[in-house]
Amino acid sequence: MSPLEIGIIGMGNVGSGVAKILTNQSEMLERRAGRPIHIRKATVRDLGRDRGVTLPDGVLTVSIDEVVNDPEIALVVQLIGGIELARDIMLRCLKAGKNVVTANKALLCEHSEEIFATAKANNCCVAYEAAVAGGIPIIDVVGESLASNQLLSIEAILNGTSNFILTEMFNRDASYDEILQEAQQLGYAEADPTFDIDGTDAAQKLVLLTQLAWGTTVSLDDFPRQGIDTLELADLKYARELGYKVKLLATSRMVDGQLEMHVQPTLIKADRPLANIDGAFNAVSLLGDAVGRTWYCGPGAGQMPTASAVVSDIIDMALGRTQITFPKLEIWSESGADVVPKNEITSRFYLRFQVEDRPHVFADIADILGQHEISLASIIQHEAPELDATGEGGYPVVPLVVMTHRTQLGKLLAADEALSKLDALREPRVRLLVADQ
Amino acid sequence: MSPLEIGIIGMGNVGSGVAKILTNQSEMLERRAGRPIHIRKATVRDLGRDRGVTLPDGVLTVSIDEVVNDPEIALVVQLIGGIELARDIMLRCLKAGKNVVTANKALLCEHSEEIFATAKANNCCVAYEAAVAGGIPIIDVVGESLASNQLLSIEAILNGTSNFILTEMFNRDASYDEILQEAQQLGYAEADPTFDIDGTDAAQKLVLLTQLAWGTTVSLDDFPRQGIDTLELADLKYARELGYKVKLLATSRMVDGQLEMHVQPTLIKADRPLANIDGAFNAVSLLGDAVGRTWYCGPGAGQMPTASAVVSDIIDMALGRTQITFPKLEIWSESGADVVPKNEITSRFYLRFQVEDRPHVFADIADILGQHEISLASIIQHEAPELDATGEGGYPVVPLVVMTHRTQLGKLLAADEALSKLDALREPRVRLLVADQ
Repeated sequence: MSPLEIGIIGMGNVGSGVAKILTNQSEMLERRAGRPIHIRKATVRDLGRDRGVTLPDGVLTVSIDEVVNDPEIALVVQLIGGIELARDIMLRCLKAGKNVVTANKALLCEHSEEIFATAKANNCCVAYEAAVAGGIPIIDVVGESLASNQLLSIEAILNGTSNFILTEMFNRDASYDEILQEAQQLGYAEADPTFDIDGTDAAQKLVLLTQLAWGTTVSLDDFPRQGIDTLELADLKYARELGYKVKLLATSRMVDGQLEMHVQPTLIKADRPLANIDGAFNAVSLLGDAVGRTWYCGPGAGQMPTASAVVSDIIDMALGRTQITFPKLEIWSESGADVVPKNEITSRFYLRFQVEDRPHVFADIADILGQHEISLASIIQHEAPELDATGEGGYPVVPLVVMTHRTQLGKLLAADEALSKLDALREPRVRLLVADQ
Repeated sequence: MSPLEIGIIGMGNVGSGVAKILTNQSEMLERRAGRPIHIRKATVRDLGRDRGVTLPDGVLTVSIDEVVNDPEIALVVQLIGGIELARDIMLRCLKAGKNVVTANKALLCEHSEEIFATAKANNCCVAYEAAVAGGIPIIDVVGESLASNQLLSIEAILNGTSNFILTEMFNRDASYDEILQEAQQLGYAEADPTFDIDGTDAAQKLVLLTQLAWGTTVSLDDFPRQGIDTLELADLKYARELGYKVKLLATSRMVDGQLEMHVQPTLIKADRPLANIDGAFNAVSLLGDAVGRTWYCGPGAGQMPTASAVVSDIIDMALGRTQITFPKLEIWSESGADVVPKNEITSRFYLRFQVEDRPHVFADIADILGQHEISLASIIQHEAPELDATGEGGYPVVPLVVMTHRTQLGKLLAADEALSKLDALREPRVRLLVADQ
């Protein structure tokens, strides 16, 4: 059968990994894809750089146009990051009748409607296994393997950097800043790690999974998002004392026909599988109406895991599987469930207050929470651990940790407003979610 | 598009579950499968029994011929167990040009060559997601999603009954017999649980995964298999003391171009993911040359998880995805790797001896092991726990637990032969594998 001619746009880390697999495993891939996969062009910024893989003369080019305008290229592997240029290339490829494989979650999160519509109008497909959870084939699982199920919830650890930092903070009794710095030195965190640690990266991936599972097009503004950048070691320890571990959890779940979504540092019971995913791994827990709960775990980033996902997409395109699957995905649904407004999200919550250790403080807090119909499940107050920390009246400032029963986020936010006026409360007031199970 | 007309052979537990999903989710399935899925015939033994799902008049039949001979039926869901009748039906369906979805692992394990060849000769497909690991879509993952990888190893917990029993024995400090009886009462174990607890069921599933990953057709006699039926609570406890948990692990891994396979109670380091899979769950750890290690976990049996896998196969058939995938699977490889002879399997081992607590016994054992080039990594001998147990010479009999360094099974078997002649050793001599990581 004739080779599948592909163009790779962006021969960075992942692009080089893709080229390595295609080059080193060409025989196996030809067998599995039913035809040779041939890299016709690959764009680079610098022709001279060593990428750990040798491509035939004339393949490397600095010109994106050489890929987009080459009529022989049927499939473009689009691996450049960012939004605007990537969007432009994506749309040009699709309009030129080329299928596209991409790992760009930010682009798809922001412009999926336009991109998918353009693909449809031009009889093309877009595949994006590598955009979510790295080497875990979670797009395949949600879009194909569990198609027999109506999914009921997705709970996932989707940012390896955050999970690495949380794991190390806890295991080594270290502060967020200390571990972040180390992670940057080791290459586990980007020089600018903002989107990893503020929850944006996980939220983008959650948007893609949610769209695939329920056909709902969600924007990042539609649901609350909090990263690990405000977490303190103290909270990881109190959580443990209560029998939980803290993970940056991305959650989408059906509640009465609506979608409850959030990305939040979340307490998970210590014996649950997701609580025990340590280090830079990703993990996804899916609840399906027929299958029940299944879990998927693996490397969420990195050159070869991501390249593995890209090459799987290429094989699916070469075989024509994607061409069958893509038009049947839930992304085309016109009746996706609505997203629950932020204030109506219900959960149990972990609250930590820094309070002056003087009479009636706890009564004041409990009174305000009670007025807002928030009932308390458990409380930790230790003897003053920081003897130097004193409030204005000379009282020591101590942490007070409260676990609530299930309540609405809106009630908690209203209570927080009232609590902020209490003289005896100091910053920060910490609020974390508690997972149901 | 015209409906896909299917026949279900065997409306037992799983068959009824399949009918439930197809009936209750018909709209969703039509959207995802691109066409309606219509149960044309379903065979039962007893027309009167309530199955928790109502099918239109005329669908239920006691006649298998009515399914096999119906030219309108394009796909047969073959859900009866056992070998001979199931094989006969399978071959008749394929020869009649019908695709087949099955959950019958024993049949495929024994007759896959004949069945796959017959399918090919008749331009038909066989799908068997439900035959391995229940609701975990592991056939999809190995056959499609990780097609970009050369798999290097499969390590899996593939029998939920065994895992349930091991978990309960350990957690509740109870004997094998006690828990087995309870599992049977609760319906977690069959009335005749032989194939679950002796490792046969897990080995059959391993054979199917191995064939799919490496194209090697293996028979059950080609590799060692041991179940949990000979395990004692004491060994679970000693393992824990050494930092391990014991699981019934099914392993296939590439070693120097050959396949090392075994199903054995295996010590796994307590902090590893597979060690923490408790209860009736299944879990599969895959090592791929590009992706690295990924894990998949979920319900390994049960009506709806298994039905979920069957219906996913039906959707793939309805869409034509299986028709693309099936001919490209590694099952057609004619150069599958050889299986390492039993004696050449290498591993670390856990050994427990019941020894008379008298002078020079340990020296004798260590001497024999040393003569066979087996070196010891750690040793546990507690003070005599069973004061009543005495040997012939009036000495108390005590357990001696040894962990070896990596060695060949053949050397260990030769050593065991020599050890069996030591007067001071009593039965049993326990030998378990220790997983590498």
